[in-house]
Amino acid sequence: MTDLWVQDVELPLPSLKDNTADADRLIQALRSRIGGDVVTPELNLLRQLPGLLRNAHYRVRCVLHEDQGRWGISAVLPAEDRCAVLGLAVDLGTTRVVIRLLDMTRGEALGEASFDNPQIAVGPDILTRIHYADTAEGLDHLHRLIADAIGRHADALCVSAGYAASDIYMASVAGNTAMTHLFLGLNPRWIIREPYIPVVNRPGTFLASALDIRFHSSARVFVFPNIGSYFGGDLMAGILYAGLHRQEETAILVDVGTNAEVVLGNRDWMIACAGAAGPALEGGAARMGMMAGPGVIDRVSIHPETLQWDIHTIEDLPPVGICGSGLIDLAAQLFMHGMLDVRGKLAPDRCGDRIRVKDDLCHLVVVASHLSGTGEELTISQVDIDSLIRSKAAMYTILETITASVGMPLRGLTRFYVAGTFGAFINPVSAITIGMIPDLDVKCYQTIGNSSLEGATRLIQDPRRLTEIYHIRDSITYMELNVNQEFMNRFSAAKFLPHTEPALFPSVNPYRTS
Amino acid sequence: MTDLWVQDVELPLPSLKDNTADADRLIQALRSRIGGDVVTPELNLLRQLPGLLRNAHYRVRCVLHEDQGRWGISAVLPAEDRCAVLGLAVDLGTTRVVIRLLDMTRGEALGEASFDNPQIAVGPDILTRIHYADTAEGLDHLHRLIADAIGRHADALCVSAGYAASDIYMASVAGNTAMTHLFLGLNPRWIIREPYIPVVNRPGTFLASALDIRFHSSARVFVFPNIGSYFGGDLMAGILYAGLHRQEETAILVDVGTNAEVVLGNRDWMIACAGAAGPALEGGAARMGMMAGPGVIDRVSIHPETLQWDIHTIEDLPPVGICGSGLIDLAAQLFMHGMLDVRGKLAPDRCGDRIRVKDDLCHLVVVASHLSGTGEELTISQVDIDSLIRSKAAMYTILETITASVGMPLRGLTRFYVAGTFGAFINPVSAITIGMIPDLDVKCYQTIGNSSLEGATRLIQDPRRLTEIYHIRDSITYMELNVNQEFMNRFSAAKFLPHTEPALFPSVNPYRTS
Repeated sequence: MTDLWVQDVELPLPSLKDNTADADRLIQALRSRIGGDVVTPELNLLRQLPGLLRNAHYRVRCVLHEDQGRWGISAVLPAEDRCAVLGLAVDLGTTRVVIRLLDMTRGEALGEASFDNPQIAVGPDILTRIHYADTAEGLDHLHRLIADAIGRHADALCVSAGYAASDIYMASVAGNTAMTHLFLGLNPRWIIREPYIPVVNRPGTFLASALDIRFHSSARVFVFPNIGSYFGGDLMAGILYAGLHRQEETAILVDVGTNAEVVLGNRDWMIACAGAAGPALEGGAARMGMMAGPGVIDRVSIHPETLQWDIHTIEDLPPVGICGSGLIDLAAQLFMHGMLDVRGKLAPDRCGDRIRVKDDLCHLVVVASHLSGTGEELTISQVDIDSLIRSKAAMYTILETITASVGMPLRGLTRFYVAGTFGAFINPVSAITIGMIPDLDVKCYQTIGNSSLEGATRLIQDPRRLTEIYHIRDSITYMELNVNQEFMNRFSAAKFLPHTEPALFPSVNPYRTS
Repeated sequence: MTDLWVQDVELPLPSLKDNTADADRLIQALRSRIGGDVVTPELNLLRQLPGLLRNAHYRVRCVLHEDQGRWGISAVLPAEDRCAVLGLAVDLGTTRVVIRLLDMTRGEALGEASFDNPQIAVGPDILTRIHYADTAEGLDHLHRLIADAIGRHADALCVSAGYAASDIYMASVAGNTAMTHLFLGLNPRWIIREPYIPVVNRPGTFLASALDIRFHSSARVFVFPNIGSYFGGDLMAGILYAGLHRQEETAILVDVGTNAEVVLGNRDWMIACAGAAGPALEGGAARMGMMAGPGVIDRVSIHPETLQWDIHTIEDLPPVGICGSGLIDLAAQLFMHGMLDVRGKLAPDRCGDRIRVKDDLCHLVVVASHLSGTGEELTISQVDIDSLIRSKAAMYTILETITASVGMPLRGLTRFYVAGTFGAFINPVSAITIGMIPDLDVKCYQTIGNSSLEGATRLIQDPRRLTEIYHIRDSITYMELNVNQEFMNRFSAAKFLPHTEPALFPSVNPYRTS
């Protein structure tokens, strides 16, 4: 098997002793070069083949693609021309889409761009979009929104790198199951209805033109496979990038995006589950604060002695709100200083003049009005904190459940990958302090950033990843999170700070301020 | 492997314990029913799948097709509906096209139609069409002519059988390499130029819509593979039908159409060659007389004692000309009565008042003007006879060469299949008499009619034939007829009646009329 999608081959010249047909000659030459089955080119390419081969004097550059586990031929170019052959890796997020342009002959990145998923105009969350997809024209509209946006932004990215969108021969797209469905124009209505059935688990490879995307006319789009409705291709790409499936040591990968997905395993086995585990976890593991952006608080610390609050905002602008990582920091600091008790309740007597009570509800002033970017006090309420506590408890419970399912103590982990943009900004010490993640040596935690984009990139760089992707897909046992009594007991225990059983968090020792 | 392209399957109902995706569920159910790999449905079908499966309560009728050696799914229908699922077998002749409509669920024939290949308007012979295909728009024009005609006639055939063309889900097309290329819109220019290279040897399966044919929107068209430029899919279909590849006994199959193709072999090996073997055989083995039609002489006998000529015409109309089988009969009879000598020359002294000499050239009156359908004498000239002699010598030489190549005497054959419409009408005794075919027991000769259509039909009736087709394709060693000195010696010897070596034709004993 070859390590490149682009192959230069020199065909034996036809003769009376070797008068095999053009297509068969090309297939044979490719087969002996790259190994594996090569399928007959599509009609359009067949029609051009005699001219292409002869004009190129039988020295051609072939662009390959995946065709149901075999090699397909997307394009045949004259080897001498050294035309640009570009690929596009796509992280298809519910909120944000990131694309990366690559040279397929060398695998190097040529540029990157990101943009809001235009389906946000229909609804910011997955559920609204799925319902909208069920209306007349709704599905087609959602499909076209994202297809057009990818095409348009890819075009701009190509132009800025000195190329054209028609130089793109392959895209690899990693997204969650719902986003993948909407991208392909598949109705995701059954994804959210018991028993949660996607249309397809292994979408495979499509003509870009069939998806209404204008790259090269024969360009292909590979869509990462998913397992269930809640374990999507973005996770497959993440596992591919983290390399869980190649390691002897058992590791865990947690992707906290719109949903929380977890996979535990090693090169021999993998077990996965996802956070949307029924009504008890409503609100999910990831609904914390606002989205990161300029002026949003992303780090908070309170000096142990001076009690001085040190608030950091993105781009150092006057604060306008708080995002997930800031909220986790804040909760951890409040807990360390006794301003939040073990039940996660604000302790008014410890908070001094930062407490406001409105409609019988406690609020805590995070930023005074004269320091805020909005001109008003920035506060968080007990409701916000309760929501955070449920989220962190859900996360911890999921982690505990998945490791327990293989008889492994959570603290036995030595490698903990944190994927996703959100995960990249979480301070693991704070997350440990509130009992969101287990009390491991901080060195065990490794943030891997946009692992979905990285995984998609790896595939563009090396077709051998395909085998790995399907190997990952087939190695994973998906565990439907069964919200039973045991789960609820764990969840209840995890709703304390850091946990009802402090022995699980030996490193968490709140300051004994009196 | 299944014996039908149409499969009724009942899928296990989705549940929380079995929440695999719709497409994967269908694929699994099909796999366990029919064996072999089933590929992911196309995007259009994927998009309809959730509705189709649920409306049909997971009991569906799947129409399958061949997809590069695996099973593809053309359509998913509600099992209860018992919709018509039709197939079309196509014998794609250079001159005549024959189509047969079949019920794919039972394999039974529903009707048949034939029509002139509309490309005749461009040129009656292959060569003219190939040159025309090389002009601007020429190829597309030829492709559309035949695609439109097949679509139109299939539509009419469906309507007359009480169906619609949209009920056709599969066609199988067997034609020679050039006709196949023109049908697919592939430029056949290199087929006729040394070293004679087709565009493709294994065209495989196409969407009917991609070939501009309106059947069911997901209908597929399978095109029989060819070996070289001169051994086409029509022959593969013929071998499939005759069953050469399944027999222990070595047999020969001869298809005399526009070209003369020969295959010799058994279940262990096959060797093939075709008649267009260079300038020495110019005129080919099959350019005899006019095409069969009303009033055309197809049988001739001369009574051994009364010397009465008994002339039979098609539809018993007044004679207007003579076709190949009539010409062979005539030559045999003339030779038996000494009117033609061993060199194939008219013997004026034995022909009485039937001889006319024009421009130093002997003509023989076959039908007197008062008996003819044209009002004029029907004659054949020495030139016509010379042409027949060359043709028969070419045929015999090819047969001798192919058997000699495996060290087998021509008279060692025990089974001799004669395929093609033309072959069906040849009287083997006459063909033996002039030394066109070997002097075997007449029982060895078996005409198999339109074996190309029959082979195409077999595939519609039973997908297991596919394996056989590719087995045939790969078992055949194609022998380029090398027009060397030995070939020319054989050819010269075969230009006598029946042969320079009468011992090869012990059954041929001209009447000793004085």
